[in-house]
Amino acid sequence: MPDAVELIRAKRDGRALTDDEIRWLIAAYTDGAVADEQMSALLMAVYFQGLEPRELRAWTAAMVSSGERLDLSAVPAPTVDKHSTGGVGDKVSLILAPLVASCGAAVPQLSGRGLGHTGGTLDKLESVPGWRAALPVAEMIEVLREVGCVICAAGPGLAPADRRLYALRDVTGTVESIPLIASSIMSKKIAEGTAALVLDVKVGRGAFMRELAAARLLAQTMVGLGHEAGVRTAALLTSMDTPLGRAVGNAVEVEEAVATLRGEGPPDLVEVTLALAREMLALAGLDADPAAALTDGRALERYRTMIAAQGGDPDAPLPRARHAQVVTAAESGWLRGLDARAVGVAAWRLGAGRARKEDPVSASAGVLCLAKPGERVEAGQAVLELRADDESRFARAHEALSGALEIGPEPPGAAPLVIERIAEA
Amino acid sequence: MPDAVELIRAKRDGRALTDDEIRWLIAAYTDGAVADEQMSALLMAVYFQGLEPRELRAWTAAMVSSGERLDLSAVPAPTVDKHSTGGVGDKVSLILAPLVASCGAAVPQLSGRGLGHTGGTLDKLESVPGWRAALPVAEMIEVLREVGCVICAAGPGLAPADRRLYALRDVTGTVESIPLIASSIMSKKIAEGTAALVLDVKVGRGAFMRELAAARLLAQTMVGLGHEAGVRTAALLTSMDTPLGRAVGNAVEVEEAVATLRGEGPPDLVEVTLALAREMLALAGLDADPAAALTDGRALERYRTMIAAQGGDPDAPLPRARHAQVVTAAESGWLRGLDARAVGVAAWRLGAGRARKEDPVSASAGVLCLAKPGERVEAGQAVLELRADDESRFARAHEALSGALEIGPEPPGAAPLVIERIAEA
Repeated sequence: MPDAVELIRAKRDGRALTDDEIRWLIAAYTDGAVADEQMSALLMAVYFQGLEPRELRAWTAAMVSSGERLDLSAVPAPTVDKHSTGGVGDKVSLILAPLVASCGAAVPQLSGRGLGHTGGTLDKLESVPGWRAALPVAEMIEVLREVGCVICAAGPGLAPADRRLYALRDVTGTVESIPLIASSIMSKKIAEGTAALVLDVKVGRGAFMRELAAARLLAQTMVGLGHEAGVRTAALLTSMDTPLGRAVGNAVEVEEAVATLRGEGPPDLVEVTLALAREMLALAGLDADPAAALTDGRALERYRTMIAAQGGDPDAPLPRARHAQVVTAAESGWLRGLDARAVGVAAWRLGAGRARKEDPVSASAGVLCLAKPGERVEAGQAVLELRADDESRFARAHEALSGALEIGPEPPGAAPLVIERIAEA
Repeated sequence: MPDAVELIRAKRDGRALTDDEIRWLIAAYTDGAVADEQMSALLMAVYFQGLEPRELRAWTAAMVSSGERLDLSAVPAPTVDKHSTGGVGDKVSLILAPLVASCGAAVPQLSGRGLGHTGGTLDKLESVPGWRAALPVAEMIEVLREVGCVICAAGPGLAPADRRLYALRDVTGTVESIPLIASSIMSKKIAEGTAALVLDVKVGRGAFMRELAAARLLAQTMVGLGHEAGVRTAALLTSMDTPLGRAVGNAVEVEEAVATLRGEGPPDLVEVTLALAREMLALAGLDADPAAALTDGRALERYRTMIAAQGGDPDAPLPRARHAQVVTAAESGWLRGLDARAVGVAAWRLGAGRARKEDPVSASAGVLCLAKPGERVEAGQAVLELRADDESRFARAHEALSGALEIGPEPPGAAPLVIERIAEA
């Protein structure tokens, strides 16, 4: 039997671990035989030494094997899911799942909660009165069969090793490692049982990957892991320098998603959503026009059915914040930049996000971008509207936004939203 | 207040921590506010990124400040201690403390237990019936005043941060880091209150530092830390390719130490002991001939007084192992090498060492080197004698010794035992 200290030292010293050693390690950590302090030292060694492709494959497979792999064969339509590496104002999942379902695919969207400055799909949908994120597996599959899409929390039986590792990485400074990020995401998606997967890898100031090269490597790594596990996988690298759409928070993002499903979405959000939808439909082998489904009401109808199937009332009013303040333009000119990370941190501090996994979030807190880069602003004009239930939260949100607006005499140059497509490792 | 994750990420990314951050970190870890899994990740980051001299100074000072610093001002003689980085057959402390005391210095030798393949002074002396390693501080100082030397365990109040860190490093693959080794050793020695310190930094196959360059850097680092904390410090780099003396274990090493104190020690052990004794006496400002004290019985008398002062009976017979086996020479020729690490591991597996801190050790188990490098052996001649109380232990000890003897047609070249002296950082 391998010894945890030997494996830590081996990885520390740059030796590749064998498949058996990796299987033992992940299983022993899940069982508690390898202690948190040993695993965190090993994760830091992985941060520095990396994992070879073979090691990463074994690591991901071991995380999948730590729990069940869902069987979606009872679902009559081709299954395809989407995963985003996390951005600010990224409410794409709320639109995309019903949109792609309305075009004939089945979307088993197991989602997460926000942590840090990026939001989480489940937190957003929980601002809809009655809506339930936690579904037993049988009910999840039933909603998927009946409605064609479901957005819910991954159950405790899915990649439990990842659940522990994710929490551990969060408190030990070992989040920012491409193999660890890739194996965490892909183990959950492989275990979920989807036949196809589109990855939205965010790049830029508001993303975990700020550099294009790192985002590309992450995308290639995940696409490779998907293919090897029999999941047809493609990735889009999309820009996350500026918040996506105008709303950042929970209820405010649901409102914007619903507007988009009505055909009234902001152009950047519509563009990214449709690009991802086309990738998903292609991987599912479906020939359909998602743009039409956004304007003819089919996608919206599917959204309402999905919300209702999970106990939510799509007609109930969403929570509204009690307090609002604005951030104004200091000078007149073109809005050239709006720092996504700063806006994300501000929304987080206003209550939309959580500092610790167990904290509650405020449904109504958030930030509205009244102007977006490429628009003209006048000195004194409100550019951001901050919302919170608790007035004491505004001060630190304003602090986060110091320097977040870039205003200049020239309009910003055009930069593509969808930067690159990666379909092969 | 700093945040543990921020500090881990900073060190991971190669940023030097401020003195305040280091003070906070060590204090918060000692208090339990920083978790083991966070500290082990940070230690692994230190393994990769190192500590700058200023950081190391602050780190060591913070470990000293985590507990009390002993006040030895009531001791009438100049205080001087010795620390060895750990070797095989290294019973030097047992001889050196009474020897240097008999020359007029006061030796406050706070010692440790063996871990891994290297032995511990306290484990060795505990094979003397009645002898107590744990003394309250007041009693320790009293023995030091009365006898001129004391060998005992560091109390729980001395550098408690190091106590926790040492245990953590042991199980997380973060032992082999020069700044972490240096700060661990020096924080305990500074807290001990000695005015002067000689370091015996072992180099070679049986040492933690196998390479001369690494050993030299460790010695320079520790000498620097000592000077900065007001402790006159010097270091000798000594060879640890072959066990020191002929006995490796606990009671067998006490026997060899007593023989050496009688003037009948093996030449290599005598040479290293006298070299260290001369350094200690020089740092203490004493002009005395330690060689004379070894042959005229003064050092032995001091040893007997010290043992008795700590409850031990210097005349009581030492435990003897019930079983013995030998390792013989496979061919005739000159014994050119005897791998110190292999012998250390064999002694450990025979019961002389422990796998976990809380394990007991066997007083009587060990290895006797019947021949040493530089001597001629004949095929079939017994070169090693293995001793154990439990016959089942021999198999794995023999395994450890496979390839440990090097026999050839030529005698080995001369190699110095005392390799280098380092008195300034």
